[in-house]
Amino acid sequence: MAMSNQRFPAEIAAHISQERLRSDIEATGSFGAIESDSDEQHGRSAVTGTDANRQAREYFVSQLQAAGLSVRIDPVGNIAGRWEPDSCDPTARPIAVGSHLDSVPNGGIFDGPLGVYAGLESVRAMQDAGISPERPVDVVSFTEEEGHRFTDGVAGSSVAAGLTNPEAVLSATDGSETLGDALARIGFAGTDQIDARQWNSWLELHVEQSDRLETTETTAGIVTAIAGTVRCQISVEGEANHAGTTTMDDRSDALVAASTLVVETERIGSLLAADENPSTVATVGKMDISPGAVNVIPGRVDLRLEVRATDQAVIDEALQRIQATLDELGTADGISTSFETPYRIQPTAMTERCQRALRKTADRIDVSRTTLPSMAGHDTMQLANATDVGLLFAPSKNGVSHNPAEWTSWDDCTHTTAVLAGGVGVLATE
Amino acid sequence: MAMSNQRFPAEIAAHISQERLRSDIEATGSFGAIESDSDEQHGRSAVTGTDANRQAREYFVSQLQAAGLSVRIDPVGNIAGRWEPDSCDPTARPIAVGSHLDSVPNGGIFDGPLGVYAGLESVRAMQDAGISPERPVDVVSFTEEEGHRFTDGVAGSSVAAGLTNPEAVLSATDGSETLGDALARIGFAGTDQIDARQWNSWLELHVEQSDRLETTETTAGIVTAIAGTVRCQISVEGEANHAGTTTMDDRSDALVAASTLVVETERIGSLLAADENPSTVATVGKMDISPGAVNVIPGRVDLRLEVRATDQAVIDEALQRIQATLDELGTADGISTSFETPYRIQPTAMTERCQRALRKTADRIDVSRTTLPSMAGHDTMQLANATDVGLLFAPSKNGVSHNPAEWTSWDDCTHTTAVLAGGVGVLATE
Repeated sequence: MAMSNQRFPAEIAAHISQERLRSDIEATGSFGAIESDSDEQHGRSAVTGTDANRQAREYFVSQLQAAGLSVRIDPVGNIAGRWEPDSCDPTARPIAVGSHLDSVPNGGIFDGPLGVYAGLESVRAMQDAGISPERPVDVVSFTEEEGHRFTDGVAGSSVAAGLTNPEAVLSATDGSETLGDALARIGFAGTDQIDARQWNSWLELHVEQSDRLETTETTAGIVTAIAGTVRCQISVEGEANHAGTTTMDDRSDALVAASTLVVETERIGSLLAADENPSTVATVGKMDISPGAVNVIPGRVDLRLEVRATDQAVIDEALQRIQATLDELGTADGISTSFETPYRIQPTAMTERCQRALRKTADRIDVSRTTLPSMAGHDTMQLANATDVGLLFAPSKNGVSHNPAEWTSWDDCTHTTAVLAGGVGVLATE
Repeated sequence: MAMSNQRFPAEIAAHISQERLRSDIEATGSFGAIESDSDEQHGRSAVTGTDANRQAREYFVSQLQAAGLSVRIDPVGNIAGRWEPDSCDPTARPIAVGSHLDSVPNGGIFDGPLGVYAGLESVRAMQDAGISPERPVDVVSFTEEEGHRFTDGVAGSSVAAGLTNPEAVLSATDGSETLGDALARIGFAGTDQIDARQWNSWLELHVEQSDRLETTETTAGIVTAIAGTVRCQISVEGEANHAGTTTMDDRSDALVAASTLVVETERIGSLLAADENPSTVATVGKMDISPGAVNVIPGRVDLRLEVRATDQAVIDEALQRIQATLDELGTADGISTSFETPYRIQPTAMTERCQRALRKTADRIDVSRTTLPSMAGHDTMQLANATDVGLLFAPSKNGVSHNPAEWTSWDDCTHTTAVLAGGVGVLATE
């Protein structure tokens, strides 16, 4: 099979249909579409459990069936369509490919759907090219990747990877309804099994959500690792006091101390990015100041701080420097601090053989490529706990996502889909 | 009359009754009293228009009448009791003395009532000492000094000074009731006139609300000036973006810029306090951060910043340095700032002859004294626009006020009341 394996990428790429791919993405974008007069705005709101989300799911099922795939829906609403060509061993571990169909409110049309329909287009192109893979192929859409409404995100893939039990996800509530009830209401509470631990491997195409590909004029980004994330809950306590009668040298101002930490966090992030790994980031996104009156010295500040890096040692170094800054601030008269890290996700490396399948394909079909880390989380991060994984990025115009201005040119969609499809073909015949 | 004027302070001081003074302050503190098991807590809540405020007012009227004073109540609820001894020319401009009876919620028992009853005790002591002043004396309590419920404070004195018309104050609302309706409800919407422009001068005794007297073991603080206050509304705009995928060198983080301003404001305040005037203060008390999510780089921060100093030139210098800091921050890529000063009160100097009357008295009766600025606003600040004014401070334990832990020893109350009373006697015979 070595010879046909070599030929696959070009044969599959030749059968990728931009028209089919675009039609599927545009149809999905029409559900929950945000009206705009601007040609540069293509927004949608298709949060899990909404009518728009139901329509997107129903359209996906119909397109899977139209391509001859057999559809399964699991208890948390994950959807998989299986292609079992005559050439394959139906008991062999399948190659899985896909992404998600839900969006954030006022999101874009590519974040999620590009990966789902690139997966389906991979199968259609292999069918049209007469490719005979040895393994089945599953085309998958995971539930609640964005995690806007019910959960913190990547909920469906966590269940498929065996990291979370379905009951925990189904009982998640938005305050008025559980995810389980929402899925039953839209007709997507299934009984089939979708278990990533049974797969041979998983590939996902996603928009980059950053501008590294655009600025380097590169089409395909082959992800080496998904960054780890640590979120810190920090409090700085001082002493609330009259802002007029308390002299400058007699203050324990919690906001001045907290502001010093914000400035220092930015400096620590920038230094580590310069020294260690350019993608390292450190951010204070939220601060609550009390009592929060113009004429009262702030007595307490609560901060949320986040560090992301692809190397756990860099994350640890950042946290250690932040802790040292807090310790230093705590030596001031009347200032005390506390520091917790309730949310910790380790960096996740992408599997070398999956990266290689994508690299080989890109080179074979002459699509420009680079390697880069992913600084955002994806379903692939969860699936890495269950199977071999690869993640591919398509360029995001101006790096924008989660916004109607999100855009990836149709040519970029097509070329990265061809890379993905070639990768599926290579893995399915290995 | 020069000889008797010289003797007044000692004669009056000898007749100040700690028992009467304490009884009045404790009675007032019993209205809206906050229960506590601790001997160190003596709180009250007597916000304008509450039942506790009505009781405090009714008790004051009864004590004025008991001392033979004729009571007037004006349309905004200010209360004045006039002492017209036979010795005086009833058409002469009176000396006025007093403070306020309202409190903040969970306030202390001295802030306000000390000054009101020190005024009344001054009259009673002069009566008992057989002093024959040439001018009438008005003992006054102003409405809504604290400004917690209906207004920004010093409402009654603003009207008495002719700075605000009564209708504007009476129509102020707490959302469910106007100040005018509240005064009518508690029986203190009067029809008499209380006009500070008709006074010869005004003296007020108040707790210091700072610890400068306590730390220097000084009993009487003769105020030289009330600080001016400027409140700034500042906004810093950057660009909200994904905290994971936006590299450190590609950010326009509004919170990092705003935090730099907070740290710089503290530095500017401290430098000016060290260089120019130790009481100068600069504070950021409030910050609103948007969108305020742990995984989003802040796109906008709105800050409230306050500068206080006794010298307008120092305030102007502070504002200029803050503006320069903002201009510097605005040179960063993607950061813009705006700066407004919707609230500006100029520093107010106390009248030299009023300060002198208090200084002379303190020296004559051997009460330790110092001069100092007031960093908090008081009714005296408004009255300075209408008549000659003097302000005297009594020590505040640990500098605490607006809190049940507010405390001034009964001896300090008595000694500072003696200084006030002597000052009234001196001014009333000048």
